[in-house]
Amino acid sequence: MRRSHYFLPTLKETPAEAEVVSHQLMLRAGMVRQASAGIYSWLPMGYTVLKKIEQIVREEQNEAGAQEVLMPTIQSADLWKQSGRYDDYGKEMLRIEDRHGREMLYGPTNEELITEIFRTSVRSYRDLPRMLYHIQWKFRDEVRPRFGVMRGREFLMKDNYSFDVDFDGAKAAYNKMFVAYLRTFARMGMKAIPMEAESGPIGGDMSHEFIVLADTGESEVFCDREFLDYDVLGSGVDYEDAGRVQDVVDHFTTLYARTDDKHDAAEFEGQVPEARRYHGRGIEVGHIFYFGTKYSEPLGAKVTTQDGGEMAVHMGSYGIGVSRMPAAIIEASHDEKGIIWPEAVAPFHVGLINLRAGDADCDAACEDAYAKLCGARVDTLYDDREERPGVKFAETDLIGLPWQLIVGPRGLKAGTVELKCRATGETEEVSLDSALARLTA
Amino acid sequence: MRRSHYFLPTLKETPAEAEVVSHQLMLRAGMVRQASAGIYSWLPMGYTVLKKIEQIVREEQNEAGAQEVLMPTIQSADLWKQSGRYDDYGKEMLRIEDRHGREMLYGPTNEELITEIFRTSVRSYRDLPRMLYHIQWKFRDEVRPRFGVMRGREFLMKDNYSFDVDFDGAKAAYNKMFVAYLRTFARMGMKAIPMEAESGPIGGDMSHEFIVLADTGESEVFCDREFLDYDVLGSGVDYEDAGRVQDVVDHFTTLYARTDDKHDAAEFEGQVPEARRYHGRGIEVGHIFYFGTKYSEPLGAKVTTQDGGEMAVHMGSYGIGVSRMPAAIIEASHDEKGIIWPEAVAPFHVGLINLRAGDADCDAACEDAYAKLCGARVDTLYDDREERPGVKFAETDLIGLPWQLIVGPRGLKAGTVELKCRATGETEEVSLDSALARLTA
Repeated sequence: MRRSHYFLPTLKETPAEAEVVSHQLMLRAGMVRQASAGIYSWLPMGYTVLKKIEQIVREEQNEAGAQEVLMPTIQSADLWKQSGRYDDYGKEMLRIEDRHGREMLYGPTNEELITEIFRTSVRSYRDLPRMLYHIQWKFRDEVRPRFGVMRGREFLMKDNYSFDVDFDGAKAAYNKMFVAYLRTFARMGMKAIPMEAESGPIGGDMSHEFIVLADTGESEVFCDREFLDYDVLGSGVDYEDAGRVQDVVDHFTTLYARTDDKHDAAEFEGQVPEARRYHGRGIEVGHIFYFGTKYSEPLGAKVTTQDGGEMAVHMGSYGIGVSRMPAAIIEASHDEKGIIWPEAVAPFHVGLINLRAGDADCDAACEDAYAKLCGARVDTLYDDREERPGVKFAETDLIGLPWQLIVGPRGLKAGTVELKCRATGETEEVSLDSALARLTA
Repeated sequence: MRRSHYFLPTLKETPAEAEVVSHQLMLRAGMVRQASAGIYSWLPMGYTVLKKIEQIVREEQNEAGAQEVLMPTIQSADLWKQSGRYDDYGKEMLRIEDRHGREMLYGPTNEELITEIFRTSVRSYRDLPRMLYHIQWKFRDEVRPRFGVMRGREFLMKDNYSFDVDFDGAKAAYNKMFVAYLRTFARMGMKAIPMEAESGPIGGDMSHEFIVLADTGESEVFCDREFLDYDVLGSGVDYEDAGRVQDVVDHFTTLYARTDDKHDAAEFEGQVPEARRYHGRGIEVGHIFYFGTKYSEPLGAKVTTQDGGEMAVHMGSYGIGVSRMPAAIIEASHDEKGIIWPEAVAPFHVGLINLRAGDADCDAACEDAYAKLCGARVDTLYDDREERPGVKFAETDLIGLPWQLIVGPRGLKAGTVELKCRATGETEEVSLDSALARLTA
């Protein structure tokens, strides 16, 4: 993409309403724009990041055996009355009356609707186990939305629902999601720590929240450093091997990991050797629940059993705050100059900077590099504008692309360009060919 | 995907509430499920088709130079009051009050919000032209929603908005979308005919609707057969070549093409030689508008001009009914046995049918074929269930996959399998290797 053509309305000043660094940087980098309180429009660069995150979430859900559906945003109130949650949700639920006076609502979550789909589709224990998920916009009418997309009112969530014949089956599904979540966040370049949690308005008997480590996070966390060193991607995963999946879960659930409200200093010190004690901050990005027959009973989601009887299915639900992730990643990965995107979610891999647009040599070298990068399918933002180098450097640092390829007249005379790594700040002077060879490797 | 694992709740009976064939087939084939009146959940197979359609729309928008954003579903009423449309929309607009009593609405379209984003981001004529689109769920509270996803209340629309300094610029943007639409529908295997149209509540001076030909369509159309023979994909397109783009538009806008309410038999016969007269039915799937400064004036979307002045930008908007497309395609492409998917939007390319699951030879041959098809990234639905052949044949015809690879014990003894083309019904007995070679070619 040529910068001259790209819709990237960056801001010079930090907007006063933005309290946290991710909100400030997302506004300054032209990723999002507030539409109304707690409701955002995603501009091209922000939306590219969001879609990359969504795709990683999707791939890991599919890998774990879940199948994707899409439920609507607007639901009838009827099912929510049947489950008893219509009143529980209070004013956080956006209630709507349609033109015929029917009570509707903007779904804050989808346990009721997926249970109804299951009820009308599945009859027999033979059709289980089953996991169905969707990635859909939700609405929670927070009293005081804040921190940008971190705590917005309209937000994108991945929610998966599992259906099993008994607790053991449900536990196996829970375990799969547990591991899938570790992998999902690791692929985004994040460390996510599962912590025992309260289950809140979803209800249920077993629940973990996943907390991404970030110095500016809202929660204080205490955990064993083994969490940080465990390579969940390198070790691979075979979801058919329930024992192996259970091993991973056991490993993580026996290690100490608590948020400050559950932290016990004596236990921490007793259980974790000093060298392995980690104390930091984090942001909740995922939450998984097992809640048995809480919804299947009142909504009548039953299957026939092997011996000819009938039973309500055991369910769990598994959420990831997809639209919260770009903010969480920025909180975990930025410096005073701006965002530092992990490669897997970066909007572009390379920022190609033409230090003197209009100069024939610079233009020719940049056009050549741009064509080669595009040809190798390396996502590149080519800053071809007639702007001062300082403006280009500042913007490219702000938007946080992993690599900067800097082409200027002096370097070209000496046969070199500059290759800069955003994360480390290290620069190297190399030939254009060798820079391209590295970027397209 | 193994059929035994796939969530595909097909129905044996045609649901009584479904009046049109696409609605009947989408319900029977387990693609969608009604959540409430005019509101649908998309099940795995339906959602796969929807995403393929969405991706074709996206690629053609990007190719034409538009950039993707995502605006929220819930909007504040304020901008709609400024544009004067808050009252125009009447009861079709879903009006919502949030917990603080603020007037909100579920966007039926996005002219106001995109104009506001533009207003707060773009200052100079140098930043134009610009086209921004999104693919987002909309809501129109129809009095009597019907025909399934064809006329639902919650629906997915691609809407693009162009911003230009003058009419000529806006016309060039309009032309690009005109050509992009022809290409988009052609890639889905459809013939789409642009027809002069009224602009309705969007307003404006220039407008075309795009009608996909289908015998069961709602509109009667009369046109020149040259529309049907024109190969808009084969001829390629260079959107930078405004003259060439204009030529394509001219070609289509000079040929006779009208819906019945605008049809004039005398003109038709005078203008079109008998052999080229086409009379059929169709479904509206796209609509493009030029409306000048209708929104930019009241909402203050102005840019500085070259001579230091200031002017309201010229705008157009361009919609495709994305969630309507699966139904429109089915209306255009089905037979008495079920759906016939065009290859580009088919949920799977191949249906692999094991005629005797449990038989060692059949299982081995099918597993081998399935592994090879998956290895070659050919989307395959492998019917591995222990069901009667008749059940499998009927379902595979119903769900309309382009190719069926049928493996049975008798054929295997003779060294052959059956390869069936769903569209033509033709079958061939060939060796498994040669069938696989053709399907993975």
